[in-house]
Amino acid sequence: MTRWIYAFEDGDGADRELLGGKGAGLAEMTRLGLPVPSGFTITTEACARFFAASEGWPGGLEEQLDAAIGALEARSGRRFGDRRAPLLVSVRSGAAVSMPGMMDTVLNLGLNRETTAALASATGNPRFAWDSYRRFVQMFGDVVLGIHYTRFHRVQEQFLQGGSLDDLDAAGLEALCGRLEAEVAELGEAFPSEPREQLKFAIDAVFRSYNSHRARYYRKTHGIPDDAGTAVNVQQMVFGNMGQDSGTGVAFTRNPKDGSRGLFGEWLPNAQGEDVVAGIRTPMPLASLEEASAPVYGALVEVLGQLEAHYRDMQDIEFTIESGKLYLLQTRSGKRTAQAAVQIVVDLVDEGVIDRRTALGRIDPRELECVLRPVISPDAKRKVIARGLDASPGAATGRVVFEPSDCQEFYDRDEPTILVRLETSPEDIQGMTVAAGVLTARGGQTSHAAVVARGMGKPCVVGCTDVQVDYARELFYAGDSVVRKGDWITIDGATGEVMDGRVQMLAPQTDVGSMATLLQWADEESRLKVRANADTGTDAARARQLGAVGIGLCRTEHMFFQPEALRAIRQMILADDPRSRQRALNDILPLQRSMFRELFVVMDGLPVTIRLLDPPLHEFLPQREGDMVEVAVDLGVRPEALRARLVQLHEANPMLGHRGVRVGITTPEVYRTQVRAIFEAACELQRDGIKVFPEVMIPLVGIADELERMRALVVETAEAVIAEYGAGPDYRVGTMIELPRAALTADAIAEHADFFSFGTNDLTQMTYGLSRDDMGKFFPDYQREGILSESPLSVFDVEGVGALVKIAVERGRAAAPRLKLGVCGEHGGEPVGVRFFHDVGLDYVSCSPYRVPVARLAAAHAALGIGV
Amino acid sequence: MTRWIYAFEDGDGADRELLGGKGAGLAEMTRLGLPVPSGFTITTEACARFFAASEGWPGGLEEQLDAAIGALEARSGRRFGDRRAPLLVSVRSGAAVSMPGMMDTVLNLGLNRETTAALASATGNPRFAWDSYRRFVQMFGDVVLGIHYTRFHRVQEQFLQGGSLDDLDAAGLEALCGRLEAEVAELGEAFPSEPREQLKFAIDAVFRSYNSHRARYYRKTHGIPDDAGTAVNVQQMVFGNMGQDSGTGVAFTRNPKDGSRGLFGEWLPNAQGEDVVAGIRTPMPLASLEEASAPVYGALVEVLGQLEAHYRDMQDIEFTIESGKLYLLQTRSGKRTAQAAVQIVVDLVDEGVIDRRTALGRIDPRELECVLRPVISPDAKRKVIARGLDASPGAATGRVVFEPSDCQEFYDRDEPTILVRLETSPEDIQGMTVAAGVLTARGGQTSHAAVVARGMGKPCVVGCTDVQVDYARELFYAGDSVVRKGDWITIDGATGEVMDGRVQMLAPQTDVGSMATLLQWADEESRLKVRANADTGTDAARARQLGAVGIGLCRTEHMFFQPEALRAIRQMILADDPRSRQRALNDILPLQRSMFRELFVVMDGLPVTIRLLDPPLHEFLPQREGDMVEVAVDLGVRPEALRARLVQLHEANPMLGHRGVRVGITTPEVYRTQVRAIFEAACELQRDGIKVFPEVMIPLVGIADELERMRALVVETAEAVIAEYGAGPDYRVGTMIELPRAALTADAIAEHADFFSFGTNDLTQMTYGLSRDDMGKFFPDYQREGILSESPLSVFDVEGVGALVKIAVERGRAAAPRLKLGVCGEHGGEPVGVRFFHDVGLDYVSCSPYRVPVARLAAAHAALGIGV
Repeated sequence: MTRWIYAFEDGDGADRELLGGKGAGLAEMTRLGLPVPSGFTITTEACARFFAASEGWPGGLEEQLDAAIGALEARSGRRFGDRRAPLLVSVRSGAAVSMPGMMDTVLNLGLNRETTAALASATGNPRFAWDSYRRFVQMFGDVVLGIHYTRFHRVQEQFLQGGSLDDLDAAGLEALCGRLEAEVAELGEAFPSEPREQLKFAIDAVFRSYNSHRARYYRKTHGIPDDAGTAVNVQQMVFGNMGQDSGTGVAFTRNPKDGSRGLFGEWLPNAQGEDVVAGIRTPMPLASLEEASAPVYGALVEVLGQLEAHYRDMQDIEFTIESGKLYLLQTRSGKRTAQAAVQIVVDLVDEGVIDRRTALGRIDPRELECVLRPVISPDAKRKVIARGLDASPGAATGRVVFEPSDCQEFYDRDEPTILVRLETSPEDIQGMTVAAGVLTARGGQTSHAAVVARGMGKPCVVGCTDVQVDYARELFYAGDSVVRKGDWITIDGATGEVMDGRVQMLAPQTDVGSMATLLQWADEESRLKVRANADTGTDAARARQLGAVGIGLCRTEHMFFQPEALRAIRQMILADDPRSRQRALNDILPLQRSMFRELFVVMDGLPVTIRLLDPPLHEFLPQREGDMVEVAVDLGVRPEALRARLVQLHEANPMLGHRGVRVGITTPEVYRTQVRAIFEAACELQRDGIKVFPEVMIPLVGIADELERMRALVVETAEAVIAEYGAGPDYRVGTMIELPRAALTADAIAEHADFFSFGTNDLTQMTYGLSRDDMGKFFPDYQREGILSESPLSVFDVEGVGALVKIAVERGRAAAPRLKLGVCGEHGGEPVGVRFFHDVGLDYVSCSPYRVPVARLAAAHAALGIGV
Repeated sequence: MTRWIYAFEDGDGADRELLGGKGAGLAEMTRLGLPVPSGFTITTEACARFFAASEGWPGGLEEQLDAAIGALEARSGRRFGDRRAPLLVSVRSGAAVSMPGMMDTVLNLGLNRETTAALASATGNPRFAWDSYRRFVQMFGDVVLGIHYTRFHRVQEQFLQGGSLDDLDAAGLEALCGRLEAEVAELGEAFPSEPREQLKFAIDAVFRSYNSHRARYYRKTHGIPDDAGTAVNVQQMVFGNMGQDSGTGVAFTRNPKDGSRGLFGEWLPNAQGEDVVAGIRTPMPLASLEEASAPVYGALVEVLGQLEAHYRDMQDIEFTIESGKLYLLQTRSGKRTAQAAVQIVVDLVDEGVIDRRTALGRIDPRELECVLRPVISPDAKRKVIARGLDASPGAATGRVVFEPSDCQEFYDRDEPTILVRLETSPEDIQGMTVAAGVLTARGGQTSHAAVVARGMGKPCVVGCTDVQVDYARELFYAGDSVVRKGDWITIDGATGEVMDGRVQMLAPQTDVGSMATLLQWADEESRLKVRANADTGTDAARARQLGAVGIGLCRTEHMFFQPEALRAIRQMILADDPRSRQRALNDILPLQRSMFRELFVVMDGLPVTIRLLDPPLHEFLPQREGDMVEVAVDLGVRPEALRARLVQLHEANPMLGHRGVRVGITTPEVYRTQVRAIFEAACELQRDGIKVFPEVMIPLVGIADELERMRALVVETAEAVIAEYGAGPDYRVGTMIELPRAALTADAIAEHADFFSFGTNDLTQMTYGLSRDDMGKFFPDYQREGILSESPLSVFDVEGVGALVKIAVERGRAAAPRLKLGVCGEHGGEPVGVRFFHDVGLDYVSCSPYRVPVARLAAAHAALGIGV
């Protein structure tokens, strides 16, 4: 006979799968001899069988439940329905992983009119007893019978007629209970008065809540199997609301906001469970408990110490004080901010509680991206008006603007802005630079806005289809809200939430000491090196500070969006003949050279991979009709000529268009100028004693012959410059692998490459046949349907794109064993990707500066086999 | 010592590599004892060594040349420079493969003022002698010294002062020769009078012409190696211009236009070589030679019979009659139209000259596409004003129109049109249907225009960047030409040429008996089956007539461009709620059903693969602002609503957008309606005794889960319909493999598929990262640079895309050994693709109806290993 029920003292505190998180904690605390009210746990297996049997109880559960209740009655000296000493219990769900949508708690189960009277006489406190019954009727009606709580609320409001619950005496509360019972009866629901029947109803309700729509959706989107089931915990009630020597609270063994040592928590005297979080009364800091009752406080401190030592992690407990006696109702590894998480594990290592590898394993690499960003205060009030994709973590509050140029205007007045757009384009970079955050209605995780914002370490929400932008009227709609230019909003780039108004935030950590320590330990374990994608000296400096050991991707075109360079590149594009094209390129040369100088100086001693021009040329021309005349005048051409060139350059599918090496082949003078700028900067600096290691990278190669020609162009130009200077740096020439064809023909391509750098953004888009800018049209449906839980642009697609990378690594290395292999797509800073790149044998990953810590920790996880 | 020179009687007539085509033919004819003037061939190796040695003659060549001349002098009894019996020779190039840009011919070499005088007295015909010298000076000046022929032309015109050459006597001609010599001298060129020196100059010129720009470009684009070299043929002159018993001509052993039996050719009495083609005098049909000289004609007939029997192929010869004696100057396998080629090999098999396999091997599968199309008459005069891509073979003449609606208007007046556009879109299909041909300035081999035109069997030239279209003024520019609406042009879809005016054409063959015979032989050798891509009953009927054994791709959306269906689909797209969407779909259902009925009836007994909706929905909305209001009124919506929906559906990269199975996932009712239409049609017809084998195909699958869901939808709907009818057909459910990810994860996808059909158009675009609509921007440069000789959209990319197909076949068959495998992209009718698909083990290919013959023959070539 399968055992469906375990008393807390019989359960295995390590078996969260069987007992759920809550049940396992209760069993463990009971075994440790801590003061836990008695009770038992119905296993998750029982729940799974419940569904397997079309919502029927598994054979033996009923009998085992009778036995468990009998044992609880015997141990407590109370009995279900007893008119002198009634047994009252709480019923709470508890899956292995907690999830929203699950039934929470029914307190005071076992009460009916008779037992309430008994409770009244036993405690000598009829008001307490009828208030407990009132709570029970409402909770049971709500969570077990599914009656919406607003119905009870309305009944109660009508009954109170403007008065307060606190004004009612026992008789008044009894009368209110009658009205609530009548409401249940009116809805045709049978309200069971028999405690065993109440319990069976409640157990069924917990089971069923596991299959609620929200819970199923949560499991789907979090990859939790549907057949795990939830446990049910039945526990004898203790009452924090029995007078001033009673109370209830929550306590953390360390500060969950910053990880600092020392107890942290809140409590309320003479209150029951949910009162602390319900916000009706303001809870008091835990320290005040010491003044109220030193012995209880002492007991709490001791218990917390015991629990942390036992679990070797910060614990978060719920406690109740009943008439001066402390009871523990739950313990778990407490939730904490990313900053706190890092601080705690480093302290725990310091205290000798855990070892370094354990510390590394405790931190989810993704969290580290939040350490350096402002976050919304855990207790802040917020009104979410829309949800989009979590493109770049951190929260930002600012005034809404729609035109990038307005960002500057507000910035000059010291007012933060949130730039709201349908999508962004390279022209918007200046505005983005001074905005506090960016919100776009379209686009995915690798849309322009997302990539640029991540590079800048700026909070960003994209693909927010809830938002309808009206540029003309300078406003956006989000559900019922209308938000106008100048209104305040707050965005959380870690959750994708858009909130009305200014929301309270926690300042970002500035002392990254504990993170630096942790990452140093990480580096000692890793094989993969971590570089950064950086286009400016500022980015590069930040990257180096965060531990990058080189630049894996400098996008030269980003330099072209500086006004002076933009003007020159536009002249180059509009040039009618090779002479005027060369003249424009001659203007670009010194600008590029000085930009490369900046990078090289910052990265002294480390390699810098520079990608030659990648985007199609039309990206550099104004996209908005309104800018056309101004730009034309500035360039000294007729607006019609500008428009005509735009039409000529127009592409049906620019992703698949005339870009990358294709520009290099058709207009070699562009690449030649860039290479000259790189080597002039490098030679100058080398003469000044800076150690420069340039790596020139050709984008979008799909044919070996393309690389062969461009390599020849690079070498010829580089050698010419080096000859002019008399000496120059060692350098490498390599290619992006971002077309499936490049991966498939990697052997032929490797013959002309010193290195490969996988451009997993484009490689994913081509392999999957999707466009980062358009996938918002169907991806939400895919997510809702559970076809994809994450965008393959956010989380590396090991199965599909990974298969191509593997082929390229094998074929490339077979043809050129000394080929250096890296990745510079977004997945270089994403743990699933980093693990794969470690496994497949790459030499390095490269990612946004702010993701360098993520990648460093993920590389250690991969090397240690953590989380496999 | 390497042998650089072979006398005709010593050469190996089979060694075209060494002697060139012309030299091998002369050697072979000499060995057969035919009347060939004596001479010798300088080998292609000598030419290759000439370039290897920086244009120096290889060691020994000079000595061997002296010996060869000596032998020729001995054999002819004439000597170079001799004042009584001077030796005169012709010098002609002759590579293994003939190519444009090579030096052609110098006649009468050996003449100078002395030998001309000798010739005059020896023949007693001074006028003939001086005319020969005049020809020599002009030819030598032009082809050897590189003096542009217009210079000589001007000198001659000035000299004649309005008169004609025929008016000059010997003295006049001698004076003219003096002027021509003076012109050479004035240009600073030394005109050698010493015959041996003339010969060395001429040999150098032939060698050098092998490296001319045009020849190099031709080799690059035709994949001919650069180091093969050309041979030089030196042959004793015979004179067709020695009087009325002399003459010159060309003759074919069969008719090169239609392949019919019997001699075919032209000749001119008293004329020299180039006079026949120069068009100064009109040549006479060969039959007239019999009247002029029965013995010579008899000799010619006999020689032609001998040559065809020897070469076992239709021969094309050049002959000269000198004073009643026949000489052969060249023989080669004659050029012929595709129609003639087929007729000839079938006849040769019939005559027992060659066997069936040889016959199959003689025909290039690509030629067969032209058999059913009108072609430009080989002797038509043409003025080419632009060149584009050869998108769909056949030639068409018509009046230029720019608006598809104008096609109908002209069509109604019985006037053929050529529709000229920047590019076409699905809205233009009605216009294309009634146009005689289509010309687009943009787009590649799989652009909309190209694919649709091929499907219709309509001549089409695309990507014609020479053409600048001005819609507003209804004209286009091409070089110096301005072509207005209503002007006549002619396009040749087999060459990509656009010609001014009406050009004379040959009607297409209507009796395809010989092709049917040939293809029946082909089918007996093939393993691959050939199906057709067809969307209508008409297309399907044509496909079946051409031997397709099923439909491999029916694009259901093409049906939606019928006006009635278009209206319903637009209503579906604009529907605000599920109810009105379903209402619109209910209107679509009977239309689709009747369209499927048509297909099934035509394909009775054969499988029909139907692809569910593939393009993004915005393709069905009007693209031109001008149509917006009219369409909105028709649909009963406000124009703003229509525009708003267009904006909402807009995609940055529609190729990678919300299309294919993604529409099926987000709007399953669309697929459900289509499946219902398929099975209602199938069940009805099966009841009537028609044998229906539907295969439902899901496009753009990249994730196994997508197919699993859509398969469930198809099966559920199909079974429901079958249950309603009480009985229904067997059916299959499968998927396109057109995303790299689908190929890479073919094992997982195969679990839900009865068949795979490789969609090589999209697969190539994704793998290569290029868009058929945009590649015109850089592909011409790639072709010019020799990076790609053919677009991978035209000729299958075995190395890259092929690697993916191979992976998919292996993984798919490993997971599902009974998986049926086919291809339905454009490469299914393209010989390189067909060979690869045969090799990799596919079951069938599917292509445009007009390419079915191509595929059938290519499949036989693949099975027989022909052309490997």
